[in-house]
Amino acid sequence: MVQNEHFLNVADSLKPSLIEKNVMPVDMELHRQRMLSKGDILRLDFGNHIVGKVTLKFGFTGSHPDAPAWIRLKFAERECELLENAETYRGWISMGWIQQEQLHIDVLPSSIALPRRYAFRYLQIEVLDVSSKYQLKLEDALCVATTSADDAKLHPYLGTERLARLDQIACHTLRECMQDVFEDGPKRDRRLWMGDLRMQALANYETFRNYDLVKRCLYLFAGTMMDGGRIGACLFTEPKIEVDDTVMFDYSLFYIPTLLDYYKATGDMETLRELAPTALHQLEVVRPYFGENHLVKDSNVLGWCFVDWNLGLNKQASAQGIYLYCLKAAIEMAGLLGVNTQTLQEDFSAKKAAAELLWNGSFYVSGENQQVSWASQVWMTLGGAANGDAQLLERLEQTSAEAMVTPYMYHNYIDALLTVGQKEKALQVMDAYWGGMMDDGADTFWELYNPQNPDESPYGGTIVNSYCHAWSCAPAYFLRKFFSEESQ
Amino acid sequence: MVQNEHFLNVADSLKPSLIEKNVMPVDMELHRQRMLSKGDILRLDFGNHIVGKVTLKFGFTGSHPDAPAWIRLKFAERECELLENAETYRGWISMGWIQQEQLHIDVLPSSIALPRRYAFRYLQIEVLDVSSKYQLKLEDALCVATTSADDAKLHPYLGTERLARLDQIACHTLRECMQDVFEDGPKRDRRLWMGDLRMQALANYETFRNYDLVKRCLYLFAGTMMDGGRIGACLFTEPKIEVDDTVMFDYSLFYIPTLLDYYKATGDMETLRELAPTALHQLEVVRPYFGENHLVKDSNVLGWCFVDWNLGLNKQASAQGIYLYCLKAAIEMAGLLGVNTQTLQEDFSAKKAAAELLWNGSFYVSGENQQVSWASQVWMTLGGAANGDAQLLERLEQTSAEAMVTPYMYHNYIDALLTVGQKEKALQVMDAYWGGMMDDGADTFWELYNPQNPDESPYGGTIVNSYCHAWSCAPAYFLRKFFSEESQ
Repeated sequence: MVQNEHFLNVADSLKPSLIEKNVMPVDMELHRQRMLSKGDILRLDFGNHIVGKVTLKFGFTGSHPDAPAWIRLKFAERECELLENAETYRGWISMGWIQQEQLHIDVLPSSIALPRRYAFRYLQIEVLDVSSKYQLKLEDALCVATTSADDAKLHPYLGTERLARLDQIACHTLRECMQDVFEDGPKRDRRLWMGDLRMQALANYETFRNYDLVKRCLYLFAGTMMDGGRIGACLFTEPKIEVDDTVMFDYSLFYIPTLLDYYKATGDMETLRELAPTALHQLEVVRPYFGENHLVKDSNVLGWCFVDWNLGLNKQASAQGIYLYCLKAAIEMAGLLGVNTQTLQEDFSAKKAAAELLWNGSFYVSGENQQVSWASQVWMTLGGAANGDAQLLERLEQTSAEAMVTPYMYHNYIDALLTVGQKEKALQVMDAYWGGMMDDGADTFWELYNPQNPDESPYGGTIVNSYCHAWSCAPAYFLRKFFSEESQ
Repeated sequence: MVQNEHFLNVADSLKPSLIEKNVMPVDMELHRQRMLSKGDILRLDFGNHIVGKVTLKFGFTGSHPDAPAWIRLKFAERECELLENAETYRGWISMGWIQQEQLHIDVLPSSIALPRRYAFRYLQIEVLDVSSKYQLKLEDALCVATTSADDAKLHPYLGTERLARLDQIACHTLRECMQDVFEDGPKRDRRLWMGDLRMQALANYETFRNYDLVKRCLYLFAGTMMDGGRIGACLFTEPKIEVDDTVMFDYSLFYIPTLLDYYKATGDMETLRELAPTALHQLEVVRPYFGENHLVKDSNVLGWCFVDWNLGLNKQASAQGIYLYCLKAAIEMAGLLGVNTQTLQEDFSAKKAAAELLWNGSFYVSGENQQVSWASQVWMTLGGAANGDAQLLERLEQTSAEAMVTPYMYHNYIDALLTVGQKEKALQVMDAYWGGMMDDGADTFWELYNPQNPDESPYGGTIVNSYCHAWSCAPAYFLRKFFSEESQ
C-alpha cells in the first residue's frame, strides 16, 4: 500500500458536512393505534428511499411490562425484500449485508436510537415476543436522513413528464449515494468504487454540482494506492482510509477519464496538475496486461477486469476498448498540461491496430472462444476502434450476443450510441431499460436489472441486491446533458 | 396505586453503589488464536456465574473486511442452555427473557460495549456470516460484574468441606441477586418480589450484612402500594418504582415477618416504628379472604396465593398456616412497639382453631378435594397449628402427598423441621436437596429443582428458567445460623 499524506490531507479537508432531514413514516397515526402482541407485524413506509439513522419510540398498553419485549426489524429498499427469509439465503455474498436486527426492549416506554445507518423505504417491526401481560405500541418513528447532495443546487429537468420522472429517480439515486464519499450503494457496499465514481461524477456535474466531493474522492484514490502506484478498484473509509486489495484492469484506468471530466467540469487546473501524474501512471500499471502484439492478453483470473456483472462475459475485447477509451483521455489530459503526447499517440495507434486482431468481419470477438458480446462492441466503439460505429451497434440487435446485465454497462451503451450519433436510439434504450425499473415501481435505480429476468442476482439471492446504486444514475446525466430543452 | 413520597425518598437515599469487578474468560489466549468463518462457534467460560455488562473486542485476519460481520450471542447460566434453540421454545413465559442477541459489526477492529446486563457464566459467539475475504477474531472479552454484596463483610463458614461448598454456592447466589435491590433472579425477573426478599434478607443478615439494602426494599414496598394500602407481590424498578398488579395473599403478609426480621437483625426501632402500621395493615387487607368460620376460603383465582410452583397444589391450608405464621410476627411486632396485642391474640386463637377444620386425623387437607400436600403441613407447622409437629412432618414421608418443587418451599420445610427440633433431619434434607444441585454442577442455586425431574419448568421450557435465584440461597442462612461451629 502506498500512502500519500498530502493527498489524504487534502481529501480530509474536503469532507462534507452531511445535510440532515427528518423523515417520518406515512400513516404514523394509524400505526400508533396498533397494539402489538407476539407475532404481530407493523410495516412502516417512509414514503421514499432514505439513508440514515432511525429512532423508534415504544410504549405499551396493559399491565406494567414484566418481561423484555423482543422484536425483529427488517429494513428494505423494496417492499418485496420483506417477504424474503434471511435464514434461507445461501448466496456467496455475506448475509451481513441483510438489513435485519433483533432487539430487546428492557424498559418501556423507551426511545431507541439505532446505532447503524440503513438504506430503506420500508421498515418492518415484528414482535418476536412480549409477555401476555402487555402489548407493545410504536409511539414514534423517525429517520434522520443524510446526504451530501444539496437540493438547492439542483435545477429542475425540463422534458416530458415521463423523462422528468426518470431524471427524478436518477437524481434521488445519486442523492442517496452521496455521503462522506460517493458510495456505490448506501445499502451495499457503502464504498468508494472507481467505476461507480466515474459515472456519479458525471451525473453530479449536471445535478448537485458538488465538485468538492469529486475532488475529495480523486484525492482519496491518489492518497492510498496499491503497490506500484496502482489506483485501487475501491477504497474503504472505515476505520480509516485504506485501499482494497481488489485488482481490476478497467477500474485503475478509469481514474484517467474521471480526473479529466473533473477538470472539464470545474476548470480546476491545480488539481489536474497535481493528480495527472498519478492518472497517467495507470497506463504503465496495466502495461503487463498486453502481449507484444499490443493486444490485451485474456486472463482466467476471476474479475481481472470488471466490465459487467454478466458472469459468462469474456473481458478481453472490452479491456482493449477500455484501454483505448482511457488512453484518449490521457492524450487530452497531457495536451492540457502541455506535455508532449507523441508517445501516447503512438501507443494509441498500436493498440487501435491490435484491436483489429479481434475483428471477425462482423464483430469484435473476445477470448479463446471468440465470444461476441454487447460489452465488447460498446467498448470498442467508445475506444474509437476502426469498426466501432453505428452499424456495429445496430447489427448487435439481430444477434444473441452475450448480454448486458447492469445499468452500469447500459450507461456505456447509451454513451456509445451518443458517440456514434444515435441520439434517438439512445433515448429509446434508456426509456426501455431505466423506464422498465420505473414501471416496476423503483424509487431509486437498481444495481442490477435484466428486463428478461428482473430477479437476476450475481450474488445468489436478491435479498442482498442493492436497489439504490450509483452506477444506475445515468438518466440524470444523459437526459440533462443531451435531452433537456436547454440542451436542444 | 398508593405512593408515599417520604418512603420513596428514604428508599432512594439508600440506593447502593454497585461494587464492580472485571472478569475475563478463562483460556482467553486460546480464543484469541481462533480465526472465525461463517458458522464457527466460540464458547467462552467466565469461570463462575457473573452479572454485568460485557465488552467484546473484535479484530480480523485476511483482507480488509468488505462486509459487516453478523454474529449471534448466547449468554447462559448453565452450559446446557447453549444447546437449546430459542426458535423452538413454546412455553408461556416471554421469550424476551432468553439472553440471545444478533449483532452486526460494521467496522473492524471494533470494541463493542453491549448495552444490556446479562446473568451468565458462558457466552457463545456464533458467526452467522462474514465475507469470504476475511475471518473474524475475538481479541478481548470483559465483563464488568456488579453486586451490592460486599465480600469484606463475609466471614468464612466453618463446617465440613461439603457444607462449606453448599454455603459458598448459596452466598454466590445471594451475591448475584444483590444489585440496586434484592432481585429474585438476575436473569429473570430481575425484580423485587416480597416472597424472595424475606429469604434474601435472612441470608443477608448471616452473610453480607447489607442492612441498608433490606431497609431500602422495605421502604420501596411501603412507598408504592396497591389500592387499599396493600403491599404488592412485587415491584418494578424501571423506568421508575411501581408496584406490579399481581395480587398474592401470602406475599402481602410476608411484609410483616420481613420487617420484624429486619428489626431483630439491626435493632433499628425508627424503621420498625415507621413501617409497622403498613405491615400490620396487611392483616386487614387479607381479611376478606376468610369465611365467618375464620378459615381461608379456597379460591379458583389463578395464583391467588403463591406457596410453590407446583401447579397442582391447592393453596387453602397453606394460606391458613401462612396467616398464622405472619400473625405471630405481628403480635411480636406489636409487643415491641408497646401496642395492645389482645385483638391480635384473639384473632390468632380463632384462626388456629379454624385450622383444625382442615384436620383429617392425620394431615391438614386443602380445598374441595381434601388434598394432602407437603406445603400444607409445613405451613401449618410454621404457623403453630395444633397438630403441627415433628410427627406430622415425619408421617408425610410415608405418603405420596403433593410435592414441593422449589427451593423456596424447601426453605420453609427446613425452617419447619428446625422449628420442631428436627435439626439432624433438616441438615439431611438440605444436603440431599441443595447438594443435588451442587452435585449437578451448580455455580449458583436454581429457581427450580425437582430431584426426580431436574428439567421441570413451570414455564414450558428450561431455556427461560433462572439458574441463579435468590429464594434458593437458604443454605447460607440455615448453615450459618444453625450449623456452623460458631453456632454449636
